[in-house]
Amino acid sequence: MSEAQGLERLSLNVWTTKKWTLAEAVAGCVEQGVPGIGLWRDKVAEHGLEAAAKLVREAGLTVTSLCRGGFFTSPDAAADNRAAIDECVTLGTDVLVLVVGGLHRGSKDLPAARAAVLDGIAELAPYADSRGVKLAIEPLHPMFCADRAVVSTLGQALDIAEEVERRTGCRSVGACVDTYHIWWDPQVFEQIERAGAAGRIHAFQACDFLIPIPADALLGRGHVGDGVIDIASFARAVRAAGYAGFTEVEIFNQEIWDTPGEQTLRTVIDRHTQLLTEL
Amino acid sequence: MSEAQGLERLSLNVWTTKKWTLAEAVAGCVEQGVPGIGLWRDKVAEHGLEAAAKLVREAGLTVTSLCRGGFFTSPDAAADNRAAIDECVTLGTDVLVLVVGGLHRGSKDLPAARAAVLDGIAELAPYADSRGVKLAIEPLHPMFCADRAVVSTLGQALDIAEEVERRTGCRSVGACVDTYHIWWDPQVFEQIERAGAAGRIHAFQACDFLIPIPADALLGRGHVGDGVIDIASFARAVRAAGYAGFTEVEIFNQEIWDTPGEQTLRTVIDRHTQLLTEL
Repeated sequence: MSEAQGLERLSLNVWTTKKWTLAEAVAGCVEQGVPGIGLWRDKVAEHGLEAAAKLVREAGLTVTSLCRGGFFTSPDAAADNRAAIDECVTLGTDVLVLVVGGLHRGSKDLPAARAAVLDGIAELAPYADSRGVKLAIEPLHPMFCADRAVVSTLGQALDIAEEVERRTGCRSVGACVDTYHIWWDPQVFEQIERAGAAGRIHAFQACDFLIPIPADALLGRGHVGDGVIDIASFARAVRAAGYAGFTEVEIFNQEIWDTPGEQTLRTVIDRHTQLLTEL
Repeated sequence: MSEAQGLERLSLNVWTTKKWTLAEAVAGCVEQGVPGIGLWRDKVAEHGLEAAAKLVREAGLTVTSLCRGGFFTSPDAAADNRAAIDECVTLGTDVLVLVVGGLHRGSKDLPAARAAVLDGIAELAPYADSRGVKLAIEPLHPMFCADRAVVSTLGQALDIAEEVERRTGCRSVGACVDTYHIWWDPQVFEQIERAGAAGRIHAFQACDFLIPIPADALLGRGHVGDGVIDIASFARAVRAAGYAGFTEVEIFNQEIWDTPGEQTLRTVIDRHTQLLTEL
């Protein structure tokens, strides 16, 4: 398989090359032959929404997802999430990644936070459906349960998706499968199968889990192959479950952020080619 | 309820007062009216096994557990685990806590590590049974999956316990329920119920989860009440599930370790009285 063929479904999430502007990231992808790009709202806003949409469209890139909506346990989440859905439409992507939020401020009531997340997604789903946008609930690693996401497993995300469908009839809710967050889960492969069978794998993000965990626990992600995860087994699993979309590489890591974007993207491509294309 | 009554089922794990010798910890418990003590093999070895057994026996303390056996993915685990069981018998406790170990060295094969853990416990269980010692598998927080414990949830620990019983007929395998490690699990309360119904809650350890996670992720534990966990809900759940044993307080935290042991134990007692005795 030639490298060019192998890159057909590769996407660069713009936070992987954090110091690049959106324009630089788009140019980098075009230059190195990466056809997909995962966007974040902050970088889009810096560039201007309409201009960003034009930029990626004219570059011929596929926008594989927009990060992020969610934070349903915060005030004003509803309006902000509707805006995020509108941004998806403008940017030409049908996937909004949801980081659902942690405990309510000052609260230790985890069941209440989880109920609020379910309610928030059920409230949002009809609007997403009406705009043709799929909601990809991203289970985050349990170390982020209190402050970022009370959805900690893929099974839990799918339970929410099914309950939202029961309540609203909306079928657009699914999950973002990110290897870093869910690799440890004893039920993960059966849940990937379940998600695929229901057409609920809306995004697949790949990065590795580094040990030891760094002082800022958010930044312990590494290039594919540099950590403890058998990432190829996840790429095979999502394909086998029927996922035909992109592999988006999203890495939070200070050392990688301090590396020139061109070099980081080259490494992303090399690892993808070496480890994830010949499955 | 008087404080004395409330302390009837309180146990100090000796790592909570890490700088105390075993003799100091025993004296501290007697002085402050704490009837239980959770031991670690390193502190027992420092004091001498037979002398340690005599010390706690003469002090009238209940040894609520011995930490720890396990590490089934390391060479020589089998012999060491049999020795740990013998130490339990000498010390007069019937609970050995198992931290099962992480990935095999240099491997990313998580299913293989989990299979090795199952095999190792199945191999150990008949000896534990013959000596009257219960094996308490401790699911560790998923952040420790790669390097310390590939058992990440209570449900997974119970699956292992049931499979070991199928293979060997031994009913002695169960779990150590530690709030710090499993509080985030969406299935945790149904699994506590399952564990209790099967008589498989062998230990209950309480400490809190602090955020942000400190630079050394192992040390992000706090006194009951200082973190994000609704610990009372777990104390109620294990009681409702039929657990009649002690609440053992085990905290890894540099600041607490730097505090005089008397003061730490006083805080342990105060929190227990305030938050966990009137359920």
